[in-house]
Amino acid sequence: MEKRIAILPGDGVGKEVSRGAVTILQAVAELFNHKFHFTYGEIGGAAIDEFGTPLPEHTLDLCKVSDAVLLGAVGGPKWDQMPGHIRPEKGLLKIRKELGLYANVRPVQYYSSISGISPLRKEIVEGVDMVVVRELTGGLYFGKPSERTVQKGEASVVDTLFYQKNEIERVIRYAFELATRRRGKVTSVDKANVLESSRMWRETAEEVAKDYPEVQLDHMLVDNAAMQLIKNPRQFDVLVTENMFGDILSDEASVLTGSLGMLPSASVSVAGPYLYEPIHGSAPDIAGMNAANPIAMILSAAMMLRLSFGLEEEAEAIENAVKQVLDAGSRTRDIALFGTPFLTTEGMVEEIKAV
Amino acid sequence: MEKRIAILPGDGVGKEVSRGAVTILQAVAELFNHKFHFTYGEIGGAAIDEFGTPLPEHTLDLCKVSDAVLLGAVGGPKWDQMPGHIRPEKGLLKIRKELGLYANVRPVQYYSSISGISPLRKEIVEGVDMVVVRELTGGLYFGKPSERTVQKGEASVVDTLFYQKNEIERVIRYAFELATRRRGKVTSVDKANVLESSRMWRETAEEVAKDYPEVQLDHMLVDNAAMQLIKNPRQFDVLVTENMFGDILSDEASVLTGSLGMLPSASVSVAGPYLYEPIHGSAPDIAGMNAANPIAMILSAAMMLRLSFGLEEEAEAIENAVKQVLDAGSRTRDIALFGTPFLTTEGMVEEIKAV
Ligand SMILES: CC(C)[C@H](C(=O)O)[C@@H](O)C(=O)O
Ligand SMILES: CC(C)[C@H](C(=O)O)[C@@H](O)C(=O)O
Repeated sequence: MEKRIAILPGDGVGKEVSRGAVTILQAVAELFNHKFHFTYGEIGGAAIDEFGTPLPEHTLDLCKVSDAVLLGAVGGPKWDQMPGHIRPEKGLLKIRKELGLYANVRPVQYYSSISGISPLRKEIVEGVDMVVVRELTGGLYFGKPSERTVQKGEASVVDTLFYQKNEIERVIRYAFELATRRRGKVTSVDKANVLESSRMWRETAEEVAKDYPEVQLDHMLVDNAAMQLIKNPRQFDVLVTENMFGDILSDEASVLTGSLGMLPSASVSVAGPYLYEPIHGSAPDIAGMNAANPIAMILSAAMMLRLSFGLEEEAEAIENAVKQVLDAGSRTRDIALFGTPFLTTEGMVEEIKAV
Repeated sequence: MEKRIAILPGDGVGKEVSRGAVTILQAVAELFNHKFHFTYGEIGGAAIDEFGTPLPEHTLDLCKVSDAVLLGAVGGPKWDQMPGHIRPEKGLLKIRKELGLYANVRPVQYYSSISGISPLRKEIVEGVDMVVVRELTGGLYFGKPSERTVQKGEASVVDTLFYQKNEIERVIRYAFELATRRRGKVTSVDKANVLESSRMWRETAEEVAKDYPEVQLDHMLVDNAAMQLIKNPRQFDVLVTENMFGDILSDEASVLTGSLGMLPSASVSVAGPYLYEPIHGSAPDIAGMNAANPIAMILSAAMMLRLSFGLEEEAEAIENAVKQVLDAGSRTRDIALFGTPFLTTEGMVEEIKAV
């Protein structure tokens, strides 16, 4: 198989972990006789420094002609004082919009080998295996107006939560599709007791559910969901919610198992290439120190092999290699118990490659 | 001292726990020689059933002529299918708006006597002592438009996040005032990398901070806050944030210590009476079963004595009684370890009263 993969390392540890993922993908290509063409593009702060914009046209063009996009991370204190429209994060928001990446898919999984680092009690977190599906191109993030105003003589500000019903429908449908291939349960999260958009969300979920009689649909209020994730995370199979709620809840979910540095994500679109990225950010505090955990990025690459290229066996090979290395006790700093030895980013990549 | 207290039991367990709080307040009045006049009003589903509206005018009038308001809880499945404007929750939103309750103050405290029921590991949660200050009358909850529309021929929906700068300022100022009487640290939570309202929020926090050189101000993105609350909750002293973020984060924070059934809250205004309520909701599943934990409501009454009436000694008497009863091993069902004995609502009230 021959595939074109756009690599957008971005900022901070994004550079290091991207390198790790490419190393592993090259090993997979050799082993399974595929050809992966890697082309590099700039995004985020790196792109601002070089081209004055967080998402240059040529990066976007590169993505559009690629079969999949692997992104490291964007952002850092260096660009925090920039005006809104040329901040690194704008690059991320724009690429989502331009590629039509309407659903962000984040599996959260418990790894028994690193159970010791979860902030939750073992009885609570053991066996957690859920996916958060977050709407990614609508809601509060993109609605207009989003601006300062003066109302009745008072300095004021407005942001807008806007959805077309078909945007709500397609992401909920994606969640149901996913649930049919998992444990068959969708938890739709909203704030229907306050927001009109949430009431439309809930109605739409009910409508979509009719097409999936074998899937169980539950509704949960977002404040309750924030509690239930901690009290009883095992109850969730697929959790689907709007952009802003999803930003908060997916990050909350990602720390439950203690494996933030190990969690991949996929952002899917209707037509174009999908985008894969680790959940952790650019981690400026450890950037360039060869200390980041490359596993989230490597597992993102595995998700790419499975979802974009249909290479199930190859994806599993990577996932198994990661599991084996963890079972054997190898750790990067973020997942090592206090006072125990750990590997560098490159060291971890080498161990995974060696399997 | 002579005070008028409006009691709004509301729905579900609200009725039972209100009764408990009144019992304790009567005992305090006797002991310390005060006169508390209790007048009852309807709100939520109970008000819908009797008067067809979740907040009748006479309830509002009662609150306005009272020195403080004690509220149980509102809502329940019975009213879930009602149209938006006559749902129980509307009563709560309306009373907040009408009484100008701009800040909701929620202390989250670790009780060593019930450490066993926290979902978090002891090392993480031990010693947690924070207050969440949530803006309560602005943001996404009240902004207009909030309605269905048709845009470019597509069924759509819009909600609006609106703030006047002075609304942002007063709640942040409240948080700083609180911090001066605590450990002197304010964490202001926003999503300034995406929302214009959050950028105004952050600027305003910086401005207010100038008046409190002895208080340390940190900014934190809401997604990161959702993680930090679980990973390292002890880092927080006073956390201040906007209405919707506050709804999610304060509920998240409230389960960390396992003591949701024990957490009180106060909602403060510029002029009128303050409103006190437990954080737990109406808990329809155990309503009327004499099984609810009355402690959150009783501690809400203690907050009222302190904040509204300046009765510090009386407030402490209640808080100490609660601590003693817990230390002695008394539990209601929600805070009993699995398989150990527990008291009824009334049983717990009696024990606290007896101290
Ligand atoms: C960087 C930021 C704009 C982004 C978001 O909020 O979507 C990030 O937090 C994420 O979750 O991918
Ligand atoms: C009932 C609901 C409207 C309310 C809110 O979201 O404000 C509740 O969740 C709360 O936090 O007091």
